[in-house]
Amino acid sequence: MTTTDVAALRELLPEGRVFDDPDVLAAHSRDRATFCPSGTPAALVRARSTEDVSAVLRWANDNRVPVVPQGARSGLSGAANALDGSVLLSLEKMDAIVEIDPDEQVAVVQPGVINGDLAAAVAEKGLFYPPDPGSRGISTIGGNVSTNAGGMCCVKYGVTGDFVRGLEVVLADGSVMRTGRRTAKGVAGYDLTRLVVGAEGTLGVVTEVTVALRPASAQPLTAVAFFPEVAQAARTVTGFLAAGHRPSVLEFMDASSVAAVQQIADLGFPEGMAGMLLVQSDIGEAAPAQLAAFEEVASATGAAEVVVSDSAAEGELLMQARRLVGDAHEKLGKALLIDDVCVPRRNLEEMVTGLNRIEAEHRVQVLCAGHAGDGNMHPVVAFDESDPDETARARQAFDAIMALGLSLGGTITGEHGVGQLKREWLGRELDQAGLRTSHAIKRALDPNDILNPTRVLPGG
Amino acid sequence: MTTTDVAALRELLPEGRVFDDPDVLAAHSRDRATFCPSGTPAALVRARSTEDVSAVLRWANDNRVPVVPQGARSGLSGAANALDGSVLLSLEKMDAIVEIDPDEQVAVVQPGVINGDLAAAVAEKGLFYPPDPGSRGISTIGGNVSTNAGGMCCVKYGVTGDFVRGLEVVLADGSVMRTGRRTAKGVAGYDLTRLVVGAEGTLGVVTEVTVALRPASAQPLTAVAFFPEVAQAARTVTGFLAAGHRPSVLEFMDASSVAAVQQIADLGFPEGMAGMLLVQSDIGEAAPAQLAAFEEVASATGAAEVVVSDSAAEGELLMQARRLVGDAHEKLGKALLIDDVCVPRRNLEEMVTGLNRIEAEHRVQVLCAGHAGDGNMHPVVAFDESDPDETARARQAFDAIMALGLSLGGTITGEHGVGQLKREWLGRELDQAGLRTSHAIKRALDPNDILNPTRVLPGG
Repeated sequence: MTTTDVAALRELLPEGRVFDDPDVLAAHSRDRATFCPSGTPAALVRARSTEDVSAVLRWANDNRVPVVPQGARSGLSGAANALDGSVLLSLEKMDAIVEIDPDEQVAVVQPGVINGDLAAAVAEKGLFYPPDPGSRGISTIGGNVSTNAGGMCCVKYGVTGDFVRGLEVVLADGSVMRTGRRTAKGVAGYDLTRLVVGAEGTLGVVTEVTVALRPASAQPLTAVAFFPEVAQAARTVTGFLAAGHRPSVLEFMDASSVAAVQQIADLGFPEGMAGMLLVQSDIGEAAPAQLAAFEEVASATGAAEVVVSDSAAEGELLMQARRLVGDAHEKLGKALLIDDVCVPRRNLEEMVTGLNRIEAEHRVQVLCAGHAGDGNMHPVVAFDESDPDETARARQAFDAIMALGLSLGGTITGEHGVGQLKREWLGRELDQAGLRTSHAIKRALDPNDILNPTRVLPGG
Repeated sequence: MTTTDVAALRELLPEGRVFDDPDVLAAHSRDRATFCPSGTPAALVRARSTEDVSAVLRWANDNRVPVVPQGARSGLSGAANALDGSVLLSLEKMDAIVEIDPDEQVAVVQPGVINGDLAAAVAEKGLFYPPDPGSRGISTIGGNVSTNAGGMCCVKYGVTGDFVRGLEVVLADGSVMRTGRRTAKGVAGYDLTRLVVGAEGTLGVVTEVTVALRPASAQPLTAVAFFPEVAQAARTVTGFLAAGHRPSVLEFMDASSVAAVQQIADLGFPEGMAGMLLVQSDIGEAAPAQLAAFEEVASATGAAEVVVSDSAAEGELLMQARRLVGDAHEKLGKALLIDDVCVPRRNLEEMVTGLNRIEAEHRVQVLCAGHAGDGNMHPVVAFDESDPDETARARQAFDAIMALGLSLGGTITGEHGVGQLKREWLGRELDQAGLRTSHAIKRALDPNDILNPTRVLPGG
């Protein structure tokens, strides 16, 4: 893409949409993934309407220019990193909450709406938008849809895709497609909505999202439990869930993560513990009984201490421990490689034991926290980026973690997506027929390979 | 397809798989759809393994022979009707429950397992498989997956697709693909699982299904309410749900359906009512309060009578009224055209009023019952098949019902699927880009158009 091309693109769009200042481009060239190279883009377009998106894609398709859709660039897999000569297509300015319909319990939003803003807006009307990725304060609904983002709510409420009823999508040739429905149910034709959800911008660009809402839940109550051995925490997770409980949160933090959090906020947690579970119940009057059941299971499996809070406010303080994990890890002053494997719950113990082995073998620090109720762990490899040898070992450890997840019957990504970071690993998770089918779909929908090329699918 | 072809197919498969007796073929040529022609098949294959399915598809693909996958043929859209010269590929004999895993709350089943058998088997282990199509006593999980079947549970629990974690699918060329995952979450690559769910056998043949289970719910309590005017019933539905309740069942029956049920089982329902709502709550100790809230809303909107049952057994009797609707309609001694439109809940009143208008205009009887909580109505056109004029008017009334559903912001099919019956109507629901995309996907996955051709997608 040349300067002439940028001029041509500027011609096609209303004023104030196209930017090519090198500093602006550099500032928009990366998401939050580690180990993902980014290229030099030719232009940034800040779309303000579906027509803008349509014009960009039509032009890019005619001229074979790669387009990288971007939300808040808070992703962790490099899917929003610039490609050389690409157009960065930012949806951030399309940030209107178009409609909240309390009777039908749906909302219609543009892709640039911040997750937390939508959650707050529907809460004002007594409604609840559950998907709550850790990035919810900064990430956009469009990005959440493109990665099929999860969060702490998933153990009870499901992932982003479970709340997407319909989409407006601009296809590679610039045509506009409406998928899905507004109604509670609908099976008219192929599920194009779910095909686009999680496709990380490789099959189309999402310009409007219709999401399902739920009635507000009761204020949750919270409990935490501390275990001398990881196996005890793992058995508590499976035992508590197998007894029929559906907590709204069920999180794990390993010893290093608890210690790192204690460094930035002394929460008075006991010392020498191998792991901690944090559970919430949002079922109102029945919540204390559910947490009592948790306490019983945890104590029976060997918890050294269980704290059950009887006020929502105190519970919120305990939740801070989990929310601070990201900050605490960053305060270690090292580069972080955040993984996202999801394994059957009963294999949590083997997962954590395996992480300790990987830590020893590759001589890098591996911390772990995650959504224990889903078996979705976020092991974090902390390493010194200025040391090339340690950096190489970090990379190996990261790969070893995915191999471990697969060997335990799991997946390489529970909620962060494949992007650029894990595309070669996708080739190890899918079988040949699945890879062929995925490539066939990509070719069918984007024959000129302009939509976020080289992302998600491995190989050619 | 010739007799030579049947012989060739027989060669490829183990003994006892291929049938071509004309009576056997005729007996397998139709599902339960009205107004859907069926052709003369060349052979029936009763598959007993994935290898059988693979061999049939590879051969059919090489020889350009259409294949019609079949479960219990209980579908209502003609998707399982024979095509001329086709192979009917029955999955009924692949009926093993491979595994039920209480810790992970998943089951792995072959496609021929009857829905009710799976539900019963998991219930024995304290688990719950919610999807409950009206056909659950006879329909198969493979058929449920292929139509993305719903049922009464959906208002609280969702549809079949919401419980499918992964599939084994045989593709058009006979290759075997595993999609999805066993874990609670996973976003590795495109959502091929959801693409195959609801595709009615046009993209692949499902040979194994991994479903998510839930902990058993409490025994539900039941209430019914009778309304002098349909508008009152509709306002009760929206008011009750908008107040934040999530009942496990919320069904509607119109006056004619109540009368038809009373003909076969006198349930002592009041006379002269325009409609009835039936609600269940399965939240244990909190259920009586939820039903009391329902009673309050129903009374405030004008219910003439509300019956709240305080025992699960009595509630089950009330549920019989809804379960008998199908039988009651059949007892009318007329041909039935069962529709399946889904509209925003607040448009239920306009939907039912519109049905009355269509009834008068086309001079055919139109009865209506359905899943009011989802806005998913099943209007039934009852007509005298021996009267060509009335038959033509029934067809027009059926079309008018779909047009009404679309005009009210709804969909032509909430849970029964498109099949053969509604493919031209799919062309009115989807936009041009959606149709083009759907055809492109079909061509990409089934380039020789052997998988249930002419079903689902309209036109060429």
